[in-house]
Amino acid sequence: MALIVQKYGGTSVGNLNRVRAVAERVAAAWRQGNRVIVVVSAMAGETNRLLKLAHDLSPHPSPREVDVIAAAGEQVSVGLVAIALKDLGIPARSLLGFQVPVETDGVFQKARIKRIDASKLLGIVEGGEVAVVAGFQGVDRWGNLTTLGRGGSDTSAVAIAAAVKADVCEIYTDVDGIYTTDPRICPAARKLERISFDEMLELASLGAKVLQIRSVEFAKRYGVPLCVRSSFNDEPGTWVVAEEPSMEDVLVSGVAAEQNEAKITLHRVPDRPGLAARIFGPIAREHIVVDMIIQNASEDGFTDVTFTVPRADHARALAIVSDVARDIGATGVSSDTNIAKISVVGLGMRSHAGVAARMFEVLAREGINIQMISTSEIKISIVIDAKYTELAVRVLHAALVEQGFGEETPS
Amino acid sequence: MALIVQKYGGTSVGNLNRVRAVAERVAAAWRQGNRVIVVVSAMAGETNRLLKLAHDLSPHPSPREVDVIAAAGEQVSVGLVAIALKDLGIPARSLLGFQVPVETDGVFQKARIKRIDASKLLGIVEGGEVAVVAGFQGVDRWGNLTTLGRGGSDTSAVAIAAAVKADVCEIYTDVDGIYTTDPRICPAARKLERISFDEMLELASLGAKVLQIRSVEFAKRYGVPLCVRSSFNDEPGTWVVAEEPSMEDVLVSGVAAEQNEAKITLHRVPDRPGLAARIFGPIAREHIVVDMIIQNASEDGFTDVTFTVPRADHARALAIVSDVARDIGATGVSSDTNIAKISVVGLGMRSHAGVAARMFEVLAREGINIQMISTSEIKISIVIDAKYTELAVRVLHAALVEQGFGEETPS
Repeated sequence: MALIVQKYGGTSVGNLNRVRAVAERVAAAWRQGNRVIVVVSAMAGETNRLLKLAHDLSPHPSPREVDVIAAAGEQVSVGLVAIALKDLGIPARSLLGFQVPVETDGVFQKARIKRIDASKLLGIVEGGEVAVVAGFQGVDRWGNLTTLGRGGSDTSAVAIAAAVKADVCEIYTDVDGIYTTDPRICPAARKLERISFDEMLELASLGAKVLQIRSVEFAKRYGVPLCVRSSFNDEPGTWVVAEEPSMEDVLVSGVAAEQNEAKITLHRVPDRPGLAARIFGPIAREHIVVDMIIQNASEDGFTDVTFTVPRADHARALAIVSDVARDIGATGVSSDTNIAKISVVGLGMRSHAGVAARMFEVLAREGINIQMISTSEIKISIVIDAKYTELAVRVLHAALVEQGFGEETPS
Repeated sequence: MALIVQKYGGTSVGNLNRVRAVAERVAAAWRQGNRVIVVVSAMAGETNRLLKLAHDLSPHPSPREVDVIAAAGEQVSVGLVAIALKDLGIPARSLLGFQVPVETDGVFQKARIKRIDASKLLGIVEGGEVAVVAGFQGVDRWGNLTTLGRGGSDTSAVAIAAAVKADVCEIYTDVDGIYTTDPRICPAARKLERISFDEMLELASLGAKVLQIRSVEFAKRYGVPLCVRSSFNDEPGTWVVAEEPSMEDVLVSGVAAEQNEAKITLHRVPDRPGLAARIFGPIAREHIVVDMIIQNASEDGFTDVTFTVPRADHARALAIVSDVARDIGATGVSSDTNIAKISVVGLGMRSHAGVAARMFEVLAREGINIQMISTSEIKISIVIDAKYTELAVRVLHAALVEQGFGEETPS
């Protein structure tokens, strides 16, 4: 008998038959004697429909009111799931964010959870009822409705699991786990049985369609074991858990590709203290998130600085650094939106040197030029020409995941 | 400078252009220096869509959860109206039922308002903002969402107007006021400039499409002047107000027809004390609302009892009284679903005899047989064969409203 939090995404409650299927699954867990808290997203498409209403009405709709409108989506789905559960004879009750309450800060559309009151939820489940909680939404200290931003229901579920000290937080979605790479690119991709929080965080782009990355940070901080599973079948899914010693045996857990970045280079900048602040201060003030930054040590007092930004922010970032470039005496600025970032992630890298070398070797053999390199303790990311994305993923997956590093084939 | 509550129905916010038009109207009142509270219904069709979801999911959906789902409709429309107001430069803020709060009893789907906290609303409007309040919804003392039942937004508006002691409560809808009779039946129908609360209550069926009758009771009890107007034009509408002496000058304010009732008669019932209780007790216990009841004084110890019920409840009521009839020794039961109730209403009837006689005379001249008669201080209702509905309305309107009673034409 355990305390379980189950989270169902939009496709899992996408129509009334799906809602009934969710209720069956919840009922099965409840009948086994578990106490169950269900966290539900809006029905697939509903959040988009509601946001479109607001944005069709106004070019800049009030963020406070957008949250009021968007929160209606989860309100409908929790009611439906609770009805379906009662039809199965399971005592159930829906709870909106303000009823839990899930207290957030006051930043509309991307609020952060500050505190979750576990007492009401625990009272409900200890009384034998299933609590069906609206994900994505909360209430600030002044009683305004807030939403957590896209994918926020995952974070709701993990935060609730942490607050009630749940034994597990199951994330039900339309894929059946986390894969070693994107199966659409690489048919040899296989589902991971388990992965550490840190690897999951580094594999953000592999998991982004499956699991909101903020929820993983939350789960790591509070030690909430996650299980990512499909609500469309009974496959076991992938466990995302705290690191265990045996995990280092696996050298590379996954290969991820991202194509939504752009690269900007400032050429021959006089290398003076405070240079990075001069460049990246104005970009940060525009709320543009910089991912990779490469600056080589200068030899002649000049250096090239290259960095990547989300492709959507490319034009704005370019305009900003073009101004900065004049001020700091750079000889020029160039940029490229036609890039891909390929990342190889694994806890085993900590204790096993040579992964980078193997990676470069494999790419070189295919004639793929590496434009940027950035490493962390458990990740190596490179930037390449976007046209090589699929090829790079396939050869790296074959060399580092399928064969394992120890079984290197002779070149 | 006044404190105004404006209520907009579902067709008034039926699409984004209508939402913008509502915002313009609110803005005009605000710019004239008034403090404005807006009460909004769900967009036309939205409540039905949400209820259909619940009822498609389950034959008997949990009433608590149906309210959670239904309340989402108003949540979207208050957000939209607040956004449209801000786009016009008007400071505005939406409030859901629980945020006001509008406290109700715990009877889901037809909750009654217990208490409205005026302090937050008054704080908002006194700070220069427009408060945009979700109609139809409230919260019970345990924090559960509740809804007031169909048309409940009118009641929300009147109750809020009473709580904040508003100068007027304007009900905006898709018709431009209360008419002396249904204009589709009688082209000579004309819009009333004003009508008393009591007349409005008796003319329920004339006003039902315009104004929820419970809201009129509320307005009467708290002396809230109502104005029923169209949100589609600038016509002045109809005032529904407390009675003034001059109102008795108008003998008949309106002629209403209802065709949704059925008639049931118990024949030759032994007339004993407790008879009515034996008949109507079982019907009441089935929550069937009985409208007219006629029982003639008996001469030979036997009496006929006739009553009307909503047509939808006819079969159930008939089954119940058929059982009762055997127990109490009635010789038989007959019923007729093919009837119409015609009501003539006017404060002037109190001081002016002869309206009934004139009514019967007009109907007799057309060969319309009167099956039942029931009178109150300001109303005379008759039951006739349904096929004469339109004819009866037209001749009664001509004789009692168009000509006025004083100007009776020679027959």
